[in-house]
Amino acid sequence: MAGYEDFVDLSYKPAKSDMIVSFRVGVPGWETKKRAWGAVASESSIGTWAKVVGLKYEHVKKVAAKVFWAGKDGWIKIAYPVDHFEYGNMAQILASIAGNDFGMKAVSSLRLQDVKWPAKIVKAFPGPQFGIKGIRKIFGVKKRPLMLSVPKPKVGMTTKEHAQIGYDIWTGGLDLLKDDENLSNQKFNPFEKRVKLSLKLRDKAEKETGEKKSYLINVTAPTTDEMLRRAKFVAREGGEYAMIDVITSGWTSVRTLREHCADLGLAIHAHRAFHGAFDRNPKHGFSNLAVGEVVRLLGVDQYHIGTHIGKMVSPKHEVLDVQEHITQQKVRENPVEHCLAEDWLDTKPVFPVASGGLQPGLIPQIIDLLGTEIMLQLGGGVHGHPKGSHAGAIAMRAALEAKLEGKSLEEASASCKALQQAMDYWGYTRPR
Amino acid sequence: MAGYEDFVDLSYKPAKSDMIVSFRVGVPGWETKKRAWGAVASESSIGTWAKVVGLKYEHVKKVAAKVFWAGKDGWIKIAYPVDHFEYGNMAQILASIAGNDFGMKAVSSLRLQDVKWPAKIVKAFPGPQFGIKGIRKIFGVKKRPLMLSVPKPKVGMTTKEHAQIGYDIWTGGLDLLKDDENLSNQKFNPFEKRVKLSLKLRDKAEKETGEKKSYLINVTAPTTDEMLRRAKFVAREGGEYAMIDVITSGWTSVRTLREHCADLGLAIHAHRAFHGAFDRNPKHGFSNLAVGEVVRLLGVDQYHIGTHIGKMVSPKHEVLDVQEHITQQKVRENPVEHCLAEDWLDTKPVFPVASGGLQPGLIPQIIDLLGTEIMLQLGGGVHGHPKGSHAGAIAMRAALEAKLEGKSLEEASASCKALQQAMDYWGYTRPR
Repeated sequence: MAGYEDFVDLSYKPAKSDMIVSFRVGVPGWETKKRAWGAVASESSIGTWAKVVGLKYEHVKKVAAKVFWAGKDGWIKIAYPVDHFEYGNMAQILASIAGNDFGMKAVSSLRLQDVKWPAKIVKAFPGPQFGIKGIRKIFGVKKRPLMLSVPKPKVGMTTKEHAQIGYDIWTGGLDLLKDDENLSNQKFNPFEKRVKLSLKLRDKAEKETGEKKSYLINVTAPTTDEMLRRAKFVAREGGEYAMIDVITSGWTSVRTLREHCADLGLAIHAHRAFHGAFDRNPKHGFSNLAVGEVVRLLGVDQYHIGTHIGKMVSPKHEVLDVQEHITQQKVRENPVEHCLAEDWLDTKPVFPVASGGLQPGLIPQIIDLLGTEIMLQLGGGVHGHPKGSHAGAIAMRAALEAKLEGKSLEEASASCKALQQAMDYWGYTRPR
Repeated sequence: MAGYEDFVDLSYKPAKSDMIVSFRVGVPGWETKKRAWGAVASESSIGTWAKVVGLKYEHVKKVAAKVFWAGKDGWIKIAYPVDHFEYGNMAQILASIAGNDFGMKAVSSLRLQDVKWPAKIVKAFPGPQFGIKGIRKIFGVKKRPLMLSVPKPKVGMTTKEHAQIGYDIWTGGLDLLKDDENLSNQKFNPFEKRVKLSLKLRDKAEKETGEKKSYLINVTAPTTDEMLRRAKFVAREGGEYAMIDVITSGWTSVRTLREHCADLGLAIHAHRAFHGAFDRNPKHGFSNLAVGEVVRLLGVDQYHIGTHIGKMVSPKHEVLDVQEHITQQKVRENPVEHCLAEDWLDTKPVFPVASGGLQPGLIPQIIDLLGTEIMLQLGGGVHGHPKGSHAGAIAMRAALEAKLEGKSLEEASASCKALQQAMDYWGYTRPR
């Protein structure tokens, strides 16, 4: 395995067209730092070449990666010549930079923290079709956060029960019903029946409330052919969205859905089930920030960024970093978090969805942290309301309106019984 | 978050139709074991239901998961009613059992070790089209391990250089040329040009050697439409295989490829780039054993199982477990490794590929460990030969034939200069 050191050149100045990746490398006892760093650059690009038949393939160096920066605590940056990659092929790009390198004995752990995507690669991906502005236009809602809810229990209800919950939360004041990540086309609630009935009740709720309502329908399927058939069915029935489990379906399917949704006029909602398997350990794996950037390139319109106060592990700085990188056009480098500068060019922003164990009493805190260009997703925090889903939705809408009007929740609850009940039930911490 | 305990019932006897999953659960200081275990069963099935609108949805329990066994060191088994799932939808199945549960605060770590796939689910997947027998028939090779090699450097060579290496290794005695995981359709070596030239040289090598030769062509692409277009191109040009980066492409794409390869008559070779991001830590993430089972169900014909003696982290017991579960029809429970019993019914076996830092001197050890129903993949261990790829292939074939004839490599090297050179260069450890 000679030659790893040859992949380290701290005097190298990356070309503007290079892809830059920040990694944190654990160095095993038997390796030098330089060899461990070089091993990552080697395995994630051309492999060892120095001893392979001499210098016969000298030109291969043109696509070799280089470690060009090393900081404290194992942090390094690697530059990849852009022509190393097939520009718009996410599966190929990740098979390079996030492939075998995670499993090498030459590193004791490896964290891919962030990627600076060069212009040629950014341009080779479609990005979101709608983006935040396009989604707001669907609803005619200019400023307030949009609100969604996934029925609980997650699975097992009949189609009628599930759709009824949609009706309850729409008429209670929420914008969007959402399928859960593990609801697709099961016997107890078949896909086509669910779409038809839910959209019928959606129409009814729209009439009654005078507001636009919609439904995030999970088209996650056995094959992409079937996924697209389901997406077409949604479009034909008058839906606005296809939802997909982006990680368990896979990156190639996500881009496939995006390309076809351009014709179908459907927006894409991305659920990130499985991410904790590879992003939870801060010293190993693929960061949630990188996932957010990948799905922005691939072109989803909405993405779950978690919350720092819910039931899922989701550090505050991570939530904020992901929000920044999926919504801004230019991002500055953050040396503390090892997040890289980014220029997203014309790529539209992704609507970030705060989710995971929220309830109405937490809404003011969430807005203080994330602002109003977000979506708020409540599951148990709506349906666990002592008076049921409809009351839960009323409480959530009231909590949000109060916050936007500068009122405290105590004040608002005086004129909203459902909010009062929610606060009695879940408690409420006044934001600092 | 009440109700987690309700998902633990150690008196429950799983139904034959249940899916069983073995997990290792890390319990945070603030949780009881029972609550942490129950949290996994809850989040990976119906979510909390006890406090959600009373017992209105009592029938939902029919698809709820149950922790029914708990052992030492955090190991548990969970039973999932089969109707919880859309039988043939891997993305849905994993979004349940390997979804949000990895990220919950209620567990400090979570390892999904193995899945016992119930018959209804096994039958809903295609499995391999060719399997080991079908692949052996392509080559007319009944007993010896098949041998493959991926050119090194991994990427950056011209099409002509890359194809020439194919010719060199085929005529040196290997069966299969393989693209590397990060070679797809880059400027320096475009896909169609590579397919055409390589298959032309393949035909030439076949004529010269009188042996069947083939090429594992990476069809990993930006979308499944393009992936299928590339696979069709391969079939039209006379190839026998489509290779895919199964994890970075994603499970839905893999099954899509499998369905179309039935018509195209192509076998599928699976590369597992990215797996180390989620399977390296034995206490967290998704095991490599589970990946092997997933790709057997989805229907790849060949899968990299690693080696315990190469450059990648790949414990011996893991390599053997994966080999057993992807090649046998019935597998017994292994309580030490927490691997579950399995009945694969009519699902064909996957040809396991030993790979990652092998060289000719290691072949006897590998055969002693894994037997002869395997494929041997050598990269640098062929192309790093002091006399080049052709000599490297001769050395590899000679090492294999020697082992099969019961000769030592020292003995064989007396009549094979290339093998002698390989052993001088890389060294050789006589197997115990």
